[in-house]
Amino acid sequence: MKPIGPIPPGFAAGGDGSLMIAGRSVEALVAAAEDTPLFVYDLATIHAQVIAFRAAFPNVALHYALKANPCRPLVAAMVGLTDGIDVASEGELALAQEAGAREISFAGPGKRNRELTAAIRAGVTINLESEGEAARALRIADGIGIRPKLAVRVNPDFTLKGSGMKMGGGAKPFGVDAERVPELARSLIEAGADWRGFHIFAGSQGLDADALIETQGATLDLAAKLAEEVGASPPLVNLGGGFGIPHFAGDRRLDVSVIGAALAERLAQPPEPLGQTRFAIELGRWLVGQAGVYLTRVIDRKVSHGETFLVVDGGLHHQLAASGNFGTVVRRNYPLANASRFSAEPTEQVSVVGCLCTPLDRLGDQVMLPRTEVGDLIAVFIAGAYGRSASPEAFLGHPAPVELLVG
Amino acid sequence: MKPIGPIPPGFAAGGDGSLMIAGRSVEALVAAAEDTPLFVYDLATIHAQVIAFRAAFPNVALHYALKANPCRPLVAAMVGLTDGIDVASEGELALAQEAGAREISFAGPGKRNRELTAAIRAGVTINLESEGEAARALRIADGIGIRPKLAVRVNPDFTLKGSGMKMGGGAKPFGVDAERVPELARSLIEAGADWRGFHIFAGSQGLDADALIETQGATLDLAAKLAEEVGASPPLVNLGGGFGIPHFAGDRRLDVSVIGAALAERLAQPPEPLGQTRFAIELGRWLVGQAGVYLTRVIDRKVSHGETFLVVDGGLHHQLAASGNFGTVVRRNYPLANASRFSAEPTEQVSVVGCLCTPLDRLGDQVMLPRTEVGDLIAVFIAGAYGRSASPEAFLGHPAPVELLVG
Repeated sequence: MKPIGPIPPGFAAGGDGSLMIAGRSVEALVAAAEDTPLFVYDLATIHAQVIAFRAAFPNVALHYALKANPCRPLVAAMVGLTDGIDVASEGELALAQEAGAREISFAGPGKRNRELTAAIRAGVTINLESEGEAARALRIADGIGIRPKLAVRVNPDFTLKGSGMKMGGGAKPFGVDAERVPELARSLIEAGADWRGFHIFAGSQGLDADALIETQGATLDLAAKLAEEVGASPPLVNLGGGFGIPHFAGDRRLDVSVIGAALAERLAQPPEPLGQTRFAIELGRWLVGQAGVYLTRVIDRKVSHGETFLVVDGGLHHQLAASGNFGTVVRRNYPLANASRFSAEPTEQVSVVGCLCTPLDRLGDQVMLPRTEVGDLIAVFIAGAYGRSASPEAFLGHPAPVELLVG
Repeated sequence: MKPIGPIPPGFAAGGDGSLMIAGRSVEALVAAAEDTPLFVYDLATIHAQVIAFRAAFPNVALHYALKANPCRPLVAAMVGLTDGIDVASEGELALAQEAGAREISFAGPGKRNRELTAAIRAGVTINLESEGEAARALRIADGIGIRPKLAVRVNPDFTLKGSGMKMGGGAKPFGVDAERVPELARSLIEAGADWRGFHIFAGSQGLDADALIETQGATLDLAAKLAEEVGASPPLVNLGGGFGIPHFAGDRRLDVSVIGAALAERLAQPPEPLGQTRFAIELGRWLVGQAGVYLTRVIDRKVSHGETFLVVDGGLHHQLAASGNFGTVVRRNYPLANASRFSAEPTEQVSVVGCLCTPLDRLGDQVMLPRTEVGDLIAVFIAGAYGRSASPEAFLGHPAPVELLVG
């Protein structure tokens, strides 16, 4: 038996014992989608995260990193709930605009000229990743006669401890090494650009509040030092994100209120060069990850050499990360459950495998579930971020999953 | 410095020093595609593999595993070059039919009822993965009044040694444990189905000819034993595939002629229950992998803490496996090159990173390349199999890559 990750709060069984999402039974949701597998995103869970953020960080802007989940109705909801949308491509920029976003920023190490052009025309803040990109942006802006909004993405000399993904510290493809940032920022100001400040992203998927407090403190110190060297106050400092959510057994829920309290204390008397600066935190996974449930139906139940396999109609083509094939070295089980018998006690050990013809396609490895029959629905949780869009959907030619926004 | 995998044979520089594919310069190919990044598939390389197979296995049918590359014109070419197409979903079945395939077989552990129905109506051979699936297929065939073509996929008790992906040996979600196969096959015959034989797949991506010879021998022995227990001669035994191609430094090219010679010796005097049996080998990666080149343009050249990064407009959204995030535990470099300066000597160490805003997006880690400038094209080889379709194309909202079939 191998453990599963913790099921996020807010999910419970209905009167028939099956999982309810936003007050609807999973079979009712499948009926609405007219097929399995499907993704269900519960707006109430997203609302709860936004409320927790607002309570913890009353004076900090909240940005949504669209890459976490680009589902159109969800993005439209995020535009209303947050203060800005962070995009990473021309395609994401178009999505954010279609959703009505007004405050948009654009980061990403390989921005093409046509992407810079689109961003400058749209009045988007470009987080510059290099001196070369800065020169291209200035040249393009000059050519089309628009004053560009340019911020500098900083590669800090520190990284978020325990981070799932290290985005700073040492040689990195992201941003400009801190010691070269002041010269670049000054050159932007001298060139007449609308300098918007700094973007400093030191890591992601952190579950240790102390480490996040330390990183935010270091980020503030670095921003203050850089601002002093620039000789100008940055209008905005994007402090990055890095708030994680539990995925695996043993992961503990992050208490953002203590991080917010520590930041508020620092910002009550900000370093002098940041006296007029606004601050933003950019979150993706933390905002939407727990809101998503992937529902897939059991197609076959089979035994091989004494081990029971439940074969479902979904798989890694929709849930690459849950299969352990994206960003993880050791495969561990995401939280999952028999959604049709959500209130039943686990009684048997099974492996839940996807329908793809590859041994990589495993959603639950040697997990305990209630006795499960063909036709039952399996729920994989934490499916709201880096799920559908971060999976090889075309692999093996299965149909696209339906996405439902509920609540 | 870290090594790269061996560049497949057949690629050379043209007069201007840039990489030629099928007699065309990479810039001419980009012009034809009207954008970067793009995939180029060279039919001549595929032909060469088919010729090598035919020479080595004159009396064995060649099947193409469509999952390796479902690009429409490539599939149409494979229909003409091979004796059968193996599909793994309703979508792949439709693709094979559109391409004019007549001999189609369908394997996959999670076939839905509608997929079984489509396959039975199309006269496709279904490789049954379980007793439950067999019962469903018989019931559906009975309902629509068509005699179904059914084979049994066997989970063998052995595995291909050194296999990249173990598909047999021990508890597996694929096929039916060997000891239960005779009873299942007999029940199919008794039910009046058109029993097509066995499908026995023991592993993939093998580079050791001796191990493949041993596995094919064991597969023949197993098929003979099962046939004897069934009491009927299987019309076809699909011996699986498992032929690998070099991806990484140190990988050695597989000599299929010695495997063919060993198999021919065995088949000259086949075991009695297989006297009338036809044999097939099912290949995907080995046939088309080396034919593909992924071309992506350098957008930025930047230095961080003394390390040089080349940022390209492609990335893991098209080349998940090359980024080291699919089916590998330790990241190693695929073969890659500066396609614009293919004849130039390597002079500098760089890391080639994709345009996605994630540290996972690395196509070449600390590789030696000629001095590379913004605007140069980078070629990633072995892009003909499990490339575009096995990557999270929607991730971060970049446009779909163009695919060109040339030669």
